Amino acid sequence: MKTIIIGGVAGGMSAATRLRRLDERREIVVFERGAYVSFANCGLPYFVGGVIEDRSALLLQTPESLAARFGLDVRVRHEVVGIDAAAKTVTVRNLDTGSELTETYDTLVLAGGSSAGLGPTTGFVPTHTLRSVEDVDRVLEVLRSLDGPERVVVVGAGYIGLEAVENLLARGAMVTLVQRGPQILSPLDPEMAAPIEQVLRGHGIDVRLGTTVTGARPGVVQLSDGTEVAADLVIEATGVHPETGLARAAGITVGQTGGIVVDGHQRTSDPSIFAVGDGVEKTDALDGRGILVTMAGLANRHGRAAADAIAGIDPGPAAPAFGTGIVGVLGITIATVGWSEKRLRASGRAHRVIHTHPSSHAGYYPGAQQMAVKLLVDPADDSILGAQIVGGEGVDKRIDVIATAMAGHISASGLSRLELAYAPQYGSAKDAVNLAGYVADNLRTGNTRTVQWHELDTLLDAGATLVDVRSPEEFTAGAIPGAVNVPLDELRDRHLELANGQLVVHCQVGQRGHTAARILTQLGYDVRNLDGGYLTWKAGTSPSRTSATAEKEAA
Amino acid sequence: MKTIIIGGVAGGMSAATRLRRLDERREIVVFERGAYVSFANCGLPYFVGGVIEDRSALLLQTPESLAARFGLDVRVRHEVVGIDAAAKTVTVRNLDTGSELTETYDTLVLAGGSSAGLGPTTGFVPTHTLRSVEDVDRVLEVLRSLDGPERVVVVGAGYIGLEAVENLLARGAMVTLVQRGPQILSPLDPEMAAPIEQVLRGHGIDVRLGTTVTGARPGVVQLSDGTEVAADLVIEATGVHPETGLARAAGITVGQTGGIVVDGHQRTSDPSIFAVGDGVEKTDALDGRGILVTMAGLANRHGRAAADAIAGIDPGPAAPAFGTGIVGVLGITIATVGWSEKRLRASGRAHRVIHTHPSSHAGYYPGAQQMAVKLLVDPADDSILGAQIVGGEGVDKRIDVIATAMAGHISASGLSRLELAYAPQYGSAKDAVNLAGYVADNLRTGNTRTVQWHELDTLLDAGATLVDVRSPEEFTAGAIPGAVNVPLDELRDRHLELANGQLVVHCQVGQRGHTAARILTQLGYDVRNLDGGYLTWKAGTSPSRTSATAEKEAA
Repeated sequence: MKTIIIGGVAGGMSAATRLRRLDERREIVVFERGAYVSFANCGLPYFVGGVIEDRSALLLQTPESLAARFGLDVRVRHEVVGIDAAAKTVTVRNLDTGSELTETYDTLVLAGGSSAGLGPTTGFVPTHTLRSVEDVDRVLEVLRSLDGPERVVVVGAGYIGLEAVENLLARGAMVTLVQRGPQILSPLDPEMAAPIEQVLRGHGIDVRLGTTVTGARPGVVQLSDGTEVAADLVIEATGVHPETGLARAAGITVGQTGGIVVDGHQRTSDPSIFAVGDGVEKTDALDGRGILVTMAGLANRHGRAAADAIAGIDPGPAAPAFGTGIVGVLGITIATVGWSEKRLRASGRAHRVIHTHPSSHAGYYPGAQQMAVKLLVDPADDSILGAQIVGGEGVDKRIDVIATAMAGHISASGLSRLELAYAPQYGSAKDAVNLAGYVADNLRTGNTRTVQWHELDTLLDAGATLVDVRSPEEFTAGAIPGAVNVPLDELRDRHLELANGQLVVHCQVGQRGHTAARILTQLGYDVRNLDGGYLTWKAGTSPSRTSATAEKEAA
Repeated sequence: MKTIIIGGVAGGMSAATRLRRLDERREIVVFERGAYVSFANCGLPYFVGGVIEDRSALLLQTPESLAARFGLDVRVRHEVVGIDAAAKTVTVRNLDTGSELTETYDTLVLAGGSSAGLGPTTGFVPTHTLRSVEDVDRVLEVLRSLDGPERVVVVGAGYIGLEAVENLLARGAMVTLVQRGPQILSPLDPEMAAPIEQVLRGHGIDVRLGTTVTGARPGVVQLSDGTEVAADLVIEATGVHPETGLARAAGITVGQTGGIVVDGHQRTSDPSIFAVGDGVEKTDALDGRGILVTMAGLANRHGRAAADAIAGIDPGPAAPAFGTGIVGVLGITIATVGWSEKRLRASGRAHRVIHTHPSSHAGYYPGAQQMAVKLLVDPADDSILGAQIVGGEGVDKRIDVIATAMAGHISASGLSRLELAYAPQYGSAKDAVNLAGYVADNLRTGNTRTVQWHELDTLLDAGATLVDVRSPEEFTAGAIPGAVNVPLDELRDRHLELANGQLVVHCQVGQRGHTAARILTQLGYDVRNLDGGYLTWKAGTSPSRTSATAEKEAA
């Protein structure tokens, strides 16, 4: 038996090594177009920044080490240029010699990943992606050749774009970040992304939202806002799409997402051909539809599952994709799982929104950091639809707990009952995740009613009274226009000062507001608590791209 | 309506504040025997060590702040000395004046917690627990009165004992740690605890295992090993038992564990009396039996549930207790959930054992730390029975993920399919939790067979051959007696050198051993992989108390 694997990084190499452990006698051939296999693609930006100092640390395996340990026949710089599914052969070009050969297979694994095109700066300014070791070598060659300051345009403010920004900043580079959409980090909702954008600007990054690269002259990048930016280098960190040319040519079904369609065991429409990794359409955990998720964890898991199926053992139940993701930039950790509010709204799916701002660990123990948590909940069954967390310490822990809860079908209210490890340096007796569950439970039972930051104006326009229950000191330091200040501890004595119509109460993060809402509700008022308090409102209404652009024009 | 709450810390105060938010008009009276309510009991050891510098940080609320915000009638230094359940009254003694009063209630909440007795050193050496603010004040008074080095005996090597040790060490104290059992940290299995014990000894702690305090003279503590230790202070960190005197006297049912029996909504055998916190028997998640778990998180959760039930709203489903716990000591984080192997064995429950030693994050990114993971699995249905993790960074995250998986009834193999957040500074594409799931899946399917460190001798005595597949350098640096060294990458060429009977293979942590076992199995050998590799074997067979004692005697 002979299995050919096209692509020798995460998914392909997981399939190859697992298959060898399952079947010592099978012939396993891996063709990799690039010069390296099994490299640390998620580490590439950090080599640019010097965080990873040793280039060899990126090369986890070599063809030689894989031959010695796993008896794999790994051929780099070999590009598969055609598949004859009927004959079960592939045509392979040796990129060094140009010669072609034909290899037969019993089973074939497509693990070609995704690719990104280069924009119109190509030919005028050195323009590269950060997707291979060769890319990084070229980027560093450009940067090291410079005498003066490094001037770099990063196109795309997603995960890789922000990692590039952080690492360029570590080199002392001057960075312009160009983002087509109206916010950075499009997996986030805008009020979660805005504070991060402010931090980037605070570090001197020139963030251009709602902007695209339109052209270039030698050493100059032209933008859709009509400006020009002097640049020694452009890093393209956007526009990834699945590599499906070979699959399409071989008649394999490709889905509407543009990814190869597979069954729960990674088998394509051709029973002898499997596919894993970025090139493959995943099944969305929330609606069961096809979705593209380009994450290394899924690629590895699916590589293993394909190997199991090829070897004829049970690969376990198919697990859908939640799209769990995380990125660190300039001391901030940003993590998401499931759907955003934007996406829920766009698809017309009912949802509840919860914003909290809990501590990473007990407040009485030094070093606690505040994080912003957003939880999306299905009002029909209290199931968790998604979460976004932005902060420092412990963000990764909370997103993993929520991702696990989603996989285990634990309800949003059920998060309050999770028994999480507590000692003061690690968490709180009521952990950040528990607290989100408590709020979900209060919404589920109708114990509290909330209003979102973007709904506030409508309520105020309709005559609602906004009551800020923070301290006078907090109120003076910055308040929502139109709010009256009645501190929580005075509310029982002073509530008669308030109007009798709709009340909206708020505090800094939502917790005192909840207590205030409970007091006023029981006193007979019609009350809503501003979800996430002043902090979420402030983030949601922070100066937008438009006003930032206006400032720039005025300057 | 009037609710009286006995005990004003975690569970009692959660009940009180939640009840107020649910019912603005109810009379709520809290009696607390001590001088403080709502203090940070889990922070007390860190105030001794100076990590928490400001004493007021320990005092989260005062009677005044609770009156202002929550309209609570909180009376400190008031001890409830009797309950008349038929008359629905309590008798309360004012500890400052000695006067007694009787208060009626509609509902009563017992939140008196647990207590610990003081040993035979009392009266000869200042002897205190670390359970209240007053305790810590007294401990610091003793320590600050000393001129020379602080000589402290800590009795009990559990969570609080180790936190005391760390903080005493931070003060420069000379510490003797006396532990009745044969290992420190009895929730752990011995091979998980042994490396921590070595670290304690390395920091100069005099660890006495299998030892008790038998008596004292002024300034001297006498131990069961016949030695005497000069001591300025004894800290008792053992022997906690539920406070149930009031409950028993009132005819309320107390379980075999010694804790008050409650239903899923914290109601005792008297329908007007609820109980929460350390004094209450919890329901074990694994066998549904009563169990004592003295954790602040559960106390808070149950306080809230009791308030819901008292207010007549649905407190949600009862959630059993997994006993999730965590402690940090000298840079090591130790966390557990569920049952240990010791406990499973003692109860005769079938189990599989898995040891792994994964990285806290991607190895190619700087700063990754190795952790030791132990997973206990039910062979009948692949459910997770428990986990223990010892390491540095990220231990808290992994135990919380596993605790959440257990709550969500995710199987051990299912851990491999969790979609956890990966960027190189936070985790790995195959996260530590995923890896444990992969091993579980290999055991479930019979793809691998393992042998535990404590089973090795029996197999070797029966004639098995032990094959160390690590590199010659690793073998030379330290090997298991009797092992032959055949590096993994040479195994396909050299397997004919091996005997034909039972083979046991091993590497450093178990991963190369697994590949070796797969190769040899397919070559027709009868092979087992040493679970957890050399590291787990080394930890399990490290010099025991006995030999440590022998060394001491020889010295």
